[in-house]
Amino acid sequence: MGLIDRFLAGDRRALARLATLVEVGDPVGDAALSRLYQASGRAHVVGVTGPPGAGKSTLVDALIRAVRDSGRRVAVVAVDPSSPISGGAVLGDRVRMGRWHADDGVFVRSMASRGRLGGLAAATAGVVHLLDAAGFPLILVETVGAGQDGVEIASLAQTTVVVQVPGLGDGVQAIKAGLLEIGDILVVNKADEPGAAEQVRLLRDLTTSGADAAGWRVPVLPTVAATGDGVDVLLDHLDAHLAVLRASGGWERRLRSAAEAEVLGRLRADLERRLAVSPEGVLELSELLAAVAERRTTPGEVVARLVDRIDGG
Amino acid sequence: MGLIDRFLAGDRRALARLATLVEVGDPVGDAALSRLYQASGRAHVVGVTGPPGAGKSTLVDALIRAVRDSGRRVAVVAVDPSSPISGGAVLGDRVRMGRWHADDGVFVRSMASRGRLGGLAAATAGVVHLLDAAGFPLILVETVGAGQDGVEIASLAQTTVVVQVPGLGDGVQAIKAGLLEIGDILVVNKADEPGAAEQVRLLRDLTTSGADAAGWRVPVLPTVAATGDGVDVLLDHLDAHLAVLRASGGWERRLRSAAEAEVLGRLRADLERRLAVSPEGVLELSELLAAVAERRTTPGEVVARLVDRIDGG
Repeated sequence: MGLIDRFLAGDRRALARLATLVEVGDPVGDAALSRLYQASGRAHVVGVTGPPGAGKSTLVDALIRAVRDSGRRVAVVAVDPSSPISGGAVLGDRVRMGRWHADDGVFVRSMASRGRLGGLAAATAGVVHLLDAAGFPLILVETVGAGQDGVEIASLAQTTVVVQVPGLGDGVQAIKAGLLEIGDILVVNKADEPGAAEQVRLLRDLTTSGADAAGWRVPVLPTVAATGDGVDVLLDHLDAHLAVLRASGGWERRLRSAAEAEVLGRLRADLERRLAVSPEGVLELSELLAAVAERRTTPGEVVARLVDRIDGG
Repeated sequence: MGLIDRFLAGDRRALARLATLVEVGDPVGDAALSRLYQASGRAHVVGVTGPPGAGKSTLVDALIRAVRDSGRRVAVVAVDPSSPISGGAVLGDRVRMGRWHADDGVFVRSMASRGRLGGLAAATAGVVHLLDAAGFPLILVETVGAGQDGVEIASLAQTTVVVQVPGLGDGVQAIKAGLLEIGDILVVNKADEPGAAEQVRLLRDLTTSGADAAGWRVPVLPTVAATGDGVDVLLDHLDAHLAVLRASGGWERRLRSAAEAEVLGRLRADLERRLAVSPEGVLELSELLAAVAERRTTPGEVVARLVDRIDGG
């Protein structure tokens, strides 16, 4: 029996193997994804983003437990654009894999940057589509949400949870990083630490602009992921947001914008690959931009040169 | 005497004519810009961004007066990505042109979207380079700062002023639009209206994270543009920020990032032009993305098809 047939029969090891092939961009993985893609588009994809140290992993772990307690299956893709290690070698991944290993209703995969330009977001999208096609009704995508990769990864989600921690400074950092604007649900984690109530109040003040077109009002939820406090309420809000999306046409709009982000992201990656096919290419691009800044050449001349390179690529 | 020679001799009508040729992308304008570009890179380019209704135009007008009172020349490029009208036909432009018409130390140009994909930011950059080469020591670029065009236009500036108005709702909108993160100076305009003190306090709370690497601490300045209150203080802060940039190497870094944004923006525009060379092309792209969202095709197939079109373009 082939890999895809075993995948379709629910074989967990076939899923893990295919996820790795998709992640590394192996042609076998791409072919499988092309065949399985039409079975995707059904899962509720939830992005969990926030700055390092906000307790995202602990929160996702607590969410896994809450989802399992409600009798549902769940998959997790944890993406760390800052780490060069991938393929399940991340420490946190092994810890988690160990914890949920015996539970067939949970699948966890960690992914990290492989140094490819634009490749991480595309790889993440592929793995999410695969888990979606495998029938997981809920997929949690954990990421810092910053940088080009982070933004593209966040755009995969139908629901985005932005995780903050107490302390005004952290709140400011999240606001400045543009994380607030993408949140459908704001979480103040470590809500038992000093400053949590103020943080919740500040965020509620900042989100009082009323319900959006679909009738959704962004909630600010305190949690203590380490003890599980508030996590059931968070899960209730995930389900409520899904219901609002389904009822309002927002579901189709978000699938559409996810498709747009994925296609344009891959085009951008293709463009970048052609512009800088080698370390020398990156250096040359850097020198060309410096020459423009120093007025030794013009933007028009550099653009013409780069367009030539794209056409020759 | 040719147009460029008259421009170099300080002829104001030659400047206005060249600005129009650059704005509409005329080959004569492009050729002039290539020749004059090396004389640019000296002006202090100040972006003035904020939501519609924040009083940006009135504030820029008050700034013109303050700059003229200090004996310096100043140029203004007012960009409205939401308006389809360009070439000096905007009402506010004619009002302004009238007001400053007799003053050779002031040059004002309004620009609006001409419906070209990615064209507005490139056109704005060209006009700014031209005014820079014409020797204006200060160039104010007024824009809403939102959307892809707004972001690219904002990246032209060495100093960015983000204009807010009283009322928490407006503050939230600016935060959500990601405007706060790009501000070197925050202005609460209409500071004589209710809620101004609270707005200033909120923004100061949000910007207490200390000085940046160059030693600059983002100030929050109340102004009443209509009466000129606070505008001298704003001008002092523009000059102070320029001094910090000059002393810290920030000047060169900002010129470099402006060059990068311009080159990559023009490449993006080139890519978009090839993807959608006609209204039919835009429709087809839209249909392809809908087909991906509805799982009738895959992201990979659409990317391959679009790459073929780029290569054939």
